[in-house]
Amino acid sequence: MRDGRWRLCLAGAGHVGAGLLAMLRDREEDLLARYGVRLSVVGVAELGGAACDPTGLDLNDLISALAERKPLAGLPEVGRPGMAAVDLLRECEPDILCGATPVNLTDGQPGLGLAETALSMGAHVVLADKGPLALAFDRLAAASDLGAGWGLGGGRPALRFSATVAGALPVVNLGHRDLAGEEITRIEGVFNGTTQYVLRGMEDGAGFDEALADAQHRGIAEADPTLDIDGHDAAFKLLITANTVLGTGATVDDVTIGSIRSVTAEMIKEARGSGQRIVPLAVAERTADGHRLQVGPQALGEDHPLAKLHPDEMGVVFYAGRVRQLSAASLEPHPEPASAAMLRDVLDIVRTRTGGAQ
Amino acid sequence: MRDGRWRLCLAGAGHVGAGLLAMLRDREEDLLARYGVRLSVVGVAELGGAACDPTGLDLNDLISALAERKPLAGLPEVGRPGMAAVDLLRECEPDILCGATPVNLTDGQPGLGLAETALSMGAHVVLADKGPLALAFDRLAAASDLGAGWGLGGGRPALRFSATVAGALPVVNLGHRDLAGEEITRIEGVFNGTTQYVLRGMEDGAGFDEALADAQHRGIAEADPTLDIDGHDAAFKLLITANTVLGTGATVDDVTIGSIRSVTAEMIKEARGSGQRIVPLAVAERTADGHRLQVGPQALGEDHPLAKLHPDEMGVVFYAGRVRQLSAASLEPHPEPASAAMLRDVLDIVRTRTGGAQ
Repeated sequence: MRDGRWRLCLAGAGHVGAGLLAMLRDREEDLLARYGVRLSVVGVAELGGAACDPTGLDLNDLISALAERKPLAGLPEVGRPGMAAVDLLRECEPDILCGATPVNLTDGQPGLGLAETALSMGAHVVLADKGPLALAFDRLAAASDLGAGWGLGGGRPALRFSATVAGALPVVNLGHRDLAGEEITRIEGVFNGTTQYVLRGMEDGAGFDEALADAQHRGIAEADPTLDIDGHDAAFKLLITANTVLGTGATVDDVTIGSIRSVTAEMIKEARGSGQRIVPLAVAERTADGHRLQVGPQALGEDHPLAKLHPDEMGVVFYAGRVRQLSAASLEPHPEPASAAMLRDVLDIVRTRTGGAQ
Repeated sequence: MRDGRWRLCLAGAGHVGAGLLAMLRDREEDLLARYGVRLSVVGVAELGGAACDPTGLDLNDLISALAERKPLAGLPEVGRPGMAAVDLLRECEPDILCGATPVNLTDGQPGLGLAETALSMGAHVVLADKGPLALAFDRLAAASDLGAGWGLGGGRPALRFSATVAGALPVVNLGHRDLAGEEITRIEGVFNGTTQYVLRGMEDGAGFDEALADAQHRGIAEADPTLDIDGHDAAFKLLITANTVLGTGATVDDVTIGSIRSVTAEMIKEARGSGQRIVPLAVAERTADGHRLQVGPQALGEDHPLAKLHPDEMGVVFYAGRVRQLSAASLEPHPEPASAAMLRDVLDIVRTRTGGAQ
């Protein structure tokens, strides 16, 4: 923090990053009035260049340029043609890096390198990109407050990533913080919007291809839906959840992954006939000798919280010692919630880092 | 904090307080291993006396005495016959006061006086007792970090109370923290277990008196169920939620309260016939000229998250600008969750107060 402002750098100015800039602009007065917090964007990097101003960029200029698909590097005075995100970090020395770079599930780059650089500089990091966490959880935990147990890392910079699992559904926060008093034995989730929408479409009589095409038409499924349909997206989200909340120390190879391609109209009909519903389920549970992580279609009784979800809804259920069952669901037909999740992470960092030492 | 330990005082050793002591004992090693946190109970006050040891009380001794209904003041060496909670506070100078005194919705005592004394001494406060918050929210907020906006109070002691609204359902936390990036427009909740259970029993064909007797038999309803049935309990919980999350600055006189006594078997049948279900609803929403707070039975479509709740479940739905709808539900047939909620509040204070200043 400098001059009473928290200085943010944003890497990646796609839907999620641009959404964050819009929320920062629209809520500036409210954040100041309600929390006394001033957030200032000092740098934004995208492919091909950046914009940088240590005294704070004009959010309207950034938002207009992005809306008109003009390169940020072309903005007068603040534009930096060719500047890479990592160089922007070194020039701006932000308090917080907000990483909204494209998801790369092969090597986690460029998000992983950026996050590591920022942490090594002492900057806090908020990630919307699940790649780095899915692939290098232990390394990032060791470099941040996460490794020293749940945000209590003595002096290490904070790492937050609530946007990486199921958008604005606070999966990590619920497990990490609201159940901090409990011993969690099992987590069940519907973490992938595409598979939820497709299976519910098939329940309404659509064929698999038809239901998928509908999801693509509505902007829920990607043009290449393989990662979603075959369970990989949900598996990475489950992995991040389990490593954070259960401390499993697992990698993606530890997750048993099934695809909803195996689900037929007959199976769905049969399930409905016996009071069940087939759900794209992700499960992490403690076992006698460790943990079990599994993703794939599974029939659940109609009374199960995850069987009651809306087709546009994602959900999670925690089972714990004393709170027998805590469930949550988030209805989010649009991608804005990921931007909102980034902002709540920024505010959580501000809160935990200005609470004042006892 | 002293010698690496956070020193806790507990006021009130009924079900919730005793449950907290049991959790502190059972989870001691886990809390140290996982979070590096040492919590030490240095004082416990109940009616007629207290136990006190600045180096830390033996939790097994406390738990055994409570189980055998022996006065804590009679414990060898640490017992303090006749010592009042406020005197215990002054003698122990704890880091955190955990208030689990009986709920008093007339003047909030003794919890209110204790909380104010602790805050004035610079101690953090965790309350399970909703009386002080329902009746003196503004005063407590002004004396704690809550008044300076959501836990950011510069140096002021922390006040947490997530156990006061719907047990372990993290209503306040979801609104306060997970939706910190959003503008919340409306909150709906089923915050009272008795009315939820009774209305669902009536749906299954029981008369009002029969359903209520069943709830009392199962330990869900109090012997005198008036506060629950007539909506006052839910009204106080709604008030705490609205004042914390929406900043309404309301008092209980601002809540329109209806009783489920007005619900007849015919009304329930009629609702079911038209695809609806009558729910004991609490609503807080922004209006053009302020806020509207209302509690009472209301028919909701069967697809509404609060219409899908289990008879033993409480729930909440937040409506916000960008996250269109976030809902959560907690199935809790027993009272232990309130103890778990107190422990999570203690850990939240430890976390925000040891995060290290930036």
